[in-house]
Amino acid sequence: MTTNLSLSHVIGIDMGGTNTSFGIVDARGEILKRGAIKTTKHESIDSYIDELYAGLEPLIKEVGGIEKIKGIGMGAPNANYYTGNIEFAPNLPWQGVIPIANLLAAKFKIPTAVTNDANAAAVGEMTYGAARGMKDFIMITLGTGVGSGIVANGQLIYGYDGFAGELGHTTIVRNNGRLCGCGKYGCLETYASATGVARTAREILETRNDDSSLRSVTLDNITSKDVFDAAIAGDIIAKEIFEYTGKMLGEAFADFVAFSAPEAIILFGGLTKSGNLILNPIREHMEKNLLKIWKGKIKILFSSLSEADSAVLGASALGWEAK
Amino acid sequence: MTTNLSLSHVIGIDMGGTNTSFGIVDARGEILKRGAIKTTKHESIDSYIDELYAGLEPLIKEVGGIEKIKGIGMGAPNANYYTGNIEFAPNLPWQGVIPIANLLAAKFKIPTAVTNDANAAAVGEMTYGAARGMKDFIMITLGTGVGSGIVANGQLIYGYDGFAGELGHTTIVRNNGRLCGCGKYGCLETYASATGVARTAREILETRNDDSSLRSVTLDNITSKDVFDAAIAGDIIAKEIFEYTGKMLGEAFADFVAFSAPEAIILFGGLTKSGNLILNPIREHMEKNLLKIWKGKIKILFSSLSEADSAVLGASALGWEAK
Repeated sequence: MTTNLSLSHVIGIDMGGTNTSFGIVDARGEILKRGAIKTTKHESIDSYIDELYAGLEPLIKEVGGIEKIKGIGMGAPNANYYTGNIEFAPNLPWQGVIPIANLLAAKFKIPTAVTNDANAAAVGEMTYGAARGMKDFIMITLGTGVGSGIVANGQLIYGYDGFAGELGHTTIVRNNGRLCGCGKYGCLETYASATGVARTAREILETRNDDSSLRSVTLDNITSKDVFDAAIAGDIIAKEIFEYTGKMLGEAFADFVAFSAPEAIILFGGLTKSGNLILNPIREHMEKNLLKIWKGKIKILFSSLSEADSAVLGASALGWEAK
Repeated sequence: MTTNLSLSHVIGIDMGGTNTSFGIVDARGEILKRGAIKTTKHESIDSYIDELYAGLEPLIKEVGGIEKIKGIGMGAPNANYYTGNIEFAPNLPWQGVIPIANLLAAKFKIPTAVTNDANAAAVGEMTYGAARGMKDFIMITLGTGVGSGIVANGQLIYGYDGFAGELGHTTIVRNNGRLCGCGKYGCLETYASATGVARTAREILETRNDDSSLRSVTLDNITSKDVFDAAIAGDIIAKEIFEYTGKMLGEAFADFVAFSAPEAIILFGGLTKSGNLILNPIREHMEKNLLKIWKGKIKILFSSLSEADSAVLGASALGWEAK
């Protein structure tokens, strides 16, 4: 973190498929100014950057001008830290390769660094959240998909090409696994994401006859929220769905531990709202599958950042090191 | 690597369960002096250290004395880089926790660093071998067991506790997997090590009736060498055994790539003697299981160090950074 008082702030931008949130953050991790624009509104990346600039310019003035800002950090789908490009993101309005870091740096005239959403979350957690002081941990985001950011020796693992940390696409079911959006079968993401939970619910309800309050929802419309509400109300099948989801995650986590021996695995995203419903089976099945040297030693933690802030904070943390 | 000319050599020690090899190595990675002692001979660690010292002392004199030596690096089973201890190694004559780095440093009066065998091999490969210039690669040792050393951002991943990189104990078969020496079921090591190959051979020969030259060997005595010889001679079942072994490795490698996106996976150890018999199915099944962004991009290489030298070289490379 900078000690240069004149460069005392960073900009964090969280680009999602639908919305983009941004903020100006100080060295203690407080978001001083906030704003948001619609990502989907812009057919061209140039008009997107223009609106982002128009939104940020007054906020920058309020904190004392661009000379106070050390850099911009952005988390975005399929963004590559090394190249500074967004590369073939299926959920964004712009096709192909977008040189987003260069475009932002040119517009704002300050250094800019980009990475994917899960890596940004890991950096945020390390700088301001549950992983403060940790040098070895794994961030797992449980949202529509399963994302991951891996920190070892105090550094994010980007890999040779900048795309390391695709743990949602490791294979958790080798035979007759579910078809994943990536084209492979049996990916962790097809079981352990919010959509995976809904898929499990549909599978169980379709193939069995047990009573369940979930049967009042049209099968095709079931969401992980429905399953959560039913489980809280005591529905046996709903609880079983979380047990199954946690088992998949726990078994996968044991393998992740064998890889990088993290101090903790930190969970973030919508599914973490289910609390112990998901945490207990994760812990149980991870422990069952760990080597003896790790049993009882690996922490599973929920992110300590508020969901509204964490994406912007995580992205902003990259801004301190942007060059 | 040091630029201080007076500290121009390092000592590399490879402690195995049966034998210990050692050498004095110069900055270009040449082993100038060599020696070996029996590990098993020594009931106490002190007498082991004494014989090691007696073996090395004359060699040290021949290269110009201890003031030429920057440090000692040792690769040893269950050795922990952080603590400098060998911790509960099942295949060594000494029980419990052995403070091996401190014992060596006290005896030789120079800095000493230790790590496990596979990590030492990774450091050796990075310093002198096939991974020279690489910052992101995974070393896989295919011997009696399956070991691994993972390098990211140019650094070995030791993890929070120093035990990272146990990829031989990731689960490759989740249901009805083979029982592993570690107590878990379905570990990669039970399929892809030399003993795993022999186990596959016994399973296939026992459960099927196809003709095979392997049927001339007593089932309990079959080794991976027998399977290799039979495969080279054209035996169909023997080839099938390598195909199966390579499939297990290839599927596991695809998951490893999703973790750290390495430039290459480098193979070392007895099984690599089988060359394309193992390499072709590894490549085929890894490719099948990779995300699109990595297809055709991840190198699988054999170690470029001679088997006799690599363990000592790998250990010695640690000596340059011993403190």
